[in-house]
Amino acid sequence: MNTFGTLFRLTDFGESHGPAIGGVVDGMPAGIRVDFDRIRQMLARRSPGSSANVSARRENDEPEFMSGIFEGVTTGTPIAFRIVNRDARPEDYEAMRDKYRPNHADYTYDAKYGFRDHRGGGRASARETAVRVVAGALAMQVLEKLGVSIHAFPSAAGNEAIDSDADLQRVLEKARKAGDTIGGIVTCVVKGVPAGIGEPVFGKLQSMLAMAMMSINAAKGFEYGDGFRAAEMRGSECVDEFCCENGKVYCRSNHSGGIQGGISNGEDIIMRVAFKPIATLPRPVHTVDRNGNECVLEARGRHDVCVIPRAVPVVESMAALCILDAIMLHRSRLIP
Amino acid sequence: MNTFGTLFRLTDFGESHGPAIGGVVDGMPAGIRVDFDRIRQMLARRSPGSSANVSARRENDEPEFMSGIFEGVTTGTPIAFRIVNRDARPEDYEAMRDKYRPNHADYTYDAKYGFRDHRGGGRASARETAVRVVAGALAMQVLEKLGVSIHAFPSAAGNEAIDSDADLQRVLEKARKAGDTIGGIVTCVVKGVPAGIGEPVFGKLQSMLAMAMMSINAAKGFEYGDGFRAAEMRGSECVDEFCCENGKVYCRSNHSGGIQGGISNGEDIIMRVAFKPIATLPRPVHTVDRNGNECVLEARGRHDVCVIPRAVPVVESMAALCILDAIMLHRSRLIP
Amino acid sequence: MNTFGTLFRLTDFGESHGPAIGGVVDGMPAGIRVDFDRIRQMLARRSPGSSANVSARRENDEPEFMSGIFEGVTTGTPIAFRIVNRDARPEDYEAMRDKYRPNHADYTYDAKYGFRDHRGGGRASARETAVRVVAGALAMQVLEKLGVSIHAFPSAAGNEAIDSDADLQRVLEKARKAGDTIGGIVTCVVKGVPAGIGEPVFGKLQSMLAMAMMSINAAKGFEYGDGFRAAEMRGSECVDEFCCENGKVYCRSNHSGGIQGGISNGEDIIMRVAFKPIATLPRPVHTVDRNGNECVLEARGRHDVCVIPRAVPVVESMAALCILDAIMLHRSRLIP
Amino acid sequence: MNTFGTLFRLTDFGESHGPAIGGVVDGMPAGIRVDFDRIRQMLARRSPGSSANVSARRENDEPEFMSGIFEGVTTGTPIAFRIVNRDARPEDYEAMRDKYRPNHADYTYDAKYGFRDHRGGGRASARETAVRVVAGALAMQVLEKLGVSIHAFPSAAGNEAIDSDADLQRVLEKARKAGDTIGGIVTCVVKGVPAGIGEPVFGKLQSMLAMAMMSINAAKGFEYGDGFRAAEMRGSECVDEFCCENGKVYCRSNHSGGIQGGISNGEDIIMRVAFKPIATLPRPVHTVDRNGNECVLEARGRHDVCVIPRAVPVVESMAALCILDAIMLHRSRLIP
Repeated sequence: MNTFGTLFRLTDFGESHGPAIGGVVDGMPAGIRVDFDRIRQMLARRSPGSSANVSARRENDEPEFMSGIFEGVTTGTPIAFRIVNRDARPEDYEAMRDKYRPNHADYTYDAKYGFRDHRGGGRASARETAVRVVAGALAMQVLEKLGVSIHAFPSAAGNEAIDSDADLQRVLEKARKAGDTIGGIVTCVVKGVPAGIGEPVFGKLQSMLAMAMMSINAAKGFEYGDGFRAAEMRGSECVDEFCCENGKVYCRSNHSGGIQGGISNGEDIIMRVAFKPIATLPRPVHTVDRNGNECVLEARGRHDVCVIPRAVPVVESMAALCILDAIMLHRSRLIP
Repeated sequence: MNTFGTLFRLTDFGESHGPAIGGVVDGMPAGIRVDFDRIRQMLARRSPGSSANVSARRENDEPEFMSGIFEGVTTGTPIAFRIVNRDARPEDYEAMRDKYRPNHADYTYDAKYGFRDHRGGGRASARETAVRVVAGALAMQVLEKLGVSIHAFPSAAGNEAIDSDADLQRVLEKARKAGDTIGGIVTCVVKGVPAGIGEPVFGKLQSMLAMAMMSINAAKGFEYGDGFRAAEMRGSECVDEFCCENGKVYCRSNHSGGIQGGISNGEDIIMRVAFKPIATLPRPVHTVDRNGNECVLEARGRHDVCVIPRAVPVVESMAALCILDAIMLHRSRLIP
Repeated sequence: MNTFGTLFRLTDFGESHGPAIGGVVDGMPAGIRVDFDRIRQMLARRSPGSSANVSARRENDEPEFMSGIFEGVTTGTPIAFRIVNRDARPEDYEAMRDKYRPNHADYTYDAKYGFRDHRGGGRASARETAVRVVAGALAMQVLEKLGVSIHAFPSAAGNEAIDSDADLQRVLEKARKAGDTIGGIVTCVVKGVPAGIGEPVFGKLQSMLAMAMMSINAAKGFEYGDGFRAAEMRGSECVDEFCCENGKVYCRSNHSGGIQGGISNGEDIIMRVAFKPIATLPRPVHTVDRNGNECVLEARGRHDVCVIPRAVPVVESMAALCILDAIMLHRSRLIP
Repeated sequence: MNTFGTLFRLTDFGESHGPAIGGVVDGMPAGIRVDFDRIRQMLARRSPGSSANVSARRENDEPEFMSGIFEGVTTGTPIAFRIVNRDARPEDYEAMRDKYRPNHADYTYDAKYGFRDHRGGGRASARETAVRVVAGALAMQVLEKLGVSIHAFPSAAGNEAIDSDADLQRVLEKARKAGDTIGGIVTCVVKGVPAGIGEPVFGKLQSMLAMAMMSINAAKGFEYGDGFRAAEMRGSECVDEFCCENGKVYCRSNHSGGIQGGISNGEDIIMRVAFKPIATLPRPVHTVDRNGNECVLEARGRHDVCVIPRAVPVVESMAALCILDAIMLHRSRLIP
């Protein structure tokens, strides 16, 4: 379904070239003065059009708030917002109405629903992630009051590790010149989560974070702490010994990635999300149409070389939704 | 929380050395004759004590069904079952009442709840996964009627790829002799899921599968299709071109791992789960106790060298719960 | 929370005098051509301003659809809509910013959230029910394909039974002349629900219907079948004997109101909802302000004499949301 | 489905004459010493066999706790319990395997599931309510720490108001002698709920309470505050004027029943639940069997004259589940 979260909930709607995308945030605590500039800044980081290597679609992604905020302060009731699709050019996609783009959701939507809004990927477009960023920016404003901060960054692009923004631009430029697209990895670090957040068994913090991250377009893998490398390690290599200083228990290392038994241990929560290369290639591909006829497809519309620059604020946002929800769940049980 | 699923739901309870573990399966279709032998066989695959390399605890893991089955047939009402903890030896754990085992959930449970049932890990013990296997075995009996089959297997142990059971035993034996524990990878393949299963945005099939798999004890990473390797590939290397034969659309390759845009495309669904080494080492480790005093901890109780042999049926079971739930969700909308 | 339903879900937002009210309908089956006129007609029945006895606020309650409909047909993705608050006159309410209107939600919202959007009742205003009517009208278009129809009508107003619209207008006029407000009862009949819909125990059909109806502003009571009269009857007076004709089992009477053991039995589902008199009286009342000072309050804004004429389509809509959700839940289990 | 609640959740299982009934309580705060005697006392009040006018089935309804309690204290993990069906006499019901008892769930279960566990009503039996009482007794132990108390009592039986237990016994005896069964009303008062509990719109406190109460077997109606009488009153007759004393706002009257706009106002929460007469009559009734053949049915098994004596603790328990859940929901948002 299209709702994420238990207590801090985002219900998300909209198609890439329909009238608008938007969301409803339910569970927002009352009395918080909203910092609209921060929301805009988060959106700007996700926004297309910031360099030659990302999609040229230019949208003034200004969310229009419709409820839940009174005189600049949250009321505790649902915060609904929409972002109008001003720069939609559905005619770019007319040729694709009946053709299935490989590695996209065209065929699967047709299989599921019998037909689809084909314009720009419709509901499956990454444009929808702007909605998550608005909700994430709201969640972060609550988390900040709780001492929690979230920071994500590209840590690999294609087959290269990334250390700086210059690094990243160089790798993206190389791919663009090669007439291809690339994937990459986004690393996310959450600081300040107190020990005790997360639930045993199905509500493990890593379980919720994995669900959140794998719901982002193009995500193919999730890991936390030592992740897949842990599979290759010996137990003695990844022990996080406890020690105690000034009455505070902590770990000497952080192989666990800040979570043990599904529950935060007070260390930084560290996770990585792998993204596949952009599916729309700047070259013709073979495919079939709705009637099963083979055909060749040339991409039109506006597309990025690599998803990871724009994925960074989306990863941060999904982390924020998860962590705040988990904190609220934990606090609900602190009785009396 | 301790419930998994939306329409086919497992509510799971129990501690490792409490009176019993068990679960309640809600949403089971009525009129299905239960194959109890298959449940036992699934449980036997997860059961400890089958070789020198796995925990020596011997439990007769016979689930006792308490409801929802009448004259051997499901009634459509909740199926509750319990597995009594017969071979519990809580005294093995008395020394650990106040000590925090590294990489376990001891400290985090104390931080969350103020105290814990320390016996054998309590609720955080992998013993709980037996409950998932019973529920998974029930789900599989429904899936079978829908033409879906699920098969998981160890594909890596420590830093070695695994091709056969002999391979696996050799690697485990090596670790045991080295006085250490190892991690590994379980690969899972789901066949027969029709195209169209899974939901857009937050309900993506990979999102639900990731949540399911990351809730298994010791899981550190999840990927599907090309997974983390996709991050290193070029777009032109991982195109799944569509073709058509006898009126049926399919893909020439399966980089997508059977899911596109969160929805199944009719190809095999392929995923991999990374598990860390067993946290309890057969050697002393440094840690602290509840009062912050440093201490040395020697493992007692019965412990495995590697989690993956026993994780295989758990991975299959979680996949079964996810896939059946997604199919039921999809079918609920097929109106009229 | 602000979401209703499990499989057919309405997430509802908006304040009476904020920018807009609206909703997101998730779970709508794909491929249904939307009859927008019917939605408008349902809204018109709920709309204020249709006679001297109802609120004079005139809104052009035209829902603006933002997603989930492509070329007039539902796509299976969330249908978001908003209704802009064009005729808002927040200045009417300035005097009430700090005063607590008796029998309204002013004090309780302040107690819950620390402050409130005081304009016209904010989130607590019955204006919000327009959102339910849009969602209900969508649900009815699905139900119609399943052979289900829903009809509600005023059956009492004040202390008089109501048989016709002329009856109702007479009673309302009498109350208006008396300078008072009155309550009443809405009866709702659902025809065509097949036997077998509804869930045992907590998901009983009457349980869901009661939750739905009691969430409508000013509802004070719910009953189905014989309802409160059943409490006064002898068992032998309310037996619904089964009989059989042409192979179809049915009941000779319908004391049960179409539901037995929480599950529909194929007879008409009959329920009644009691509404209290409009809380805002056309005369001064004593109350206190936020600081605890006693004060007198004179109603401003635009208010009805009686809620029931406008409640009728809201009752129908909530019934539609419930029944469709229950049917979808039932169908999800019909495997294979 | 068979789970009640959002944060304090009861998952309920079991058939009247199956191996056991029971439940899983999830969300119980940790660190609460369980008063098992109080649970037993609550169960004893619901228990059959306490007088000539209630069912003669004698069960030692001793709940067996399987998890979530360690050394007498709640651990924060799910509390599972079962009550074994010791005094089951399924042979009493053999004659009813194919016959549909009027006003029972026999026909509707067959219509829903294709067949049913016919023994004593199976899942539809009121025996299941013992599970709710165990969970309710746990919830009350949390509520007590929050200053909340719940008290229910029979306020009408048949067509007579009830003031005392002697009154009630007299009315029941009269019905028993008349060879008939009767219905009645249970009134429930919740004291000590602070102002601000409950959610706007769909999560209104009365909405949750109505859902809870209408899920009890034989409940036909729910009302709170003035309830159905409010429909007959004038607005000026049911104004709850606010006043203020020692800085505390309160109401001079309680027509609202302690809830305004879906949210508690600090006054007593008062509600009434109407129950129909026991469906099983001590005389033959006409009905049909599964094959549509007309037949006569004579009740066997053990049955009450009136449900309300035993319904009282069930009403209290459902109120406790609701109120605690709402309080936890409210507290989860109190950030920071």
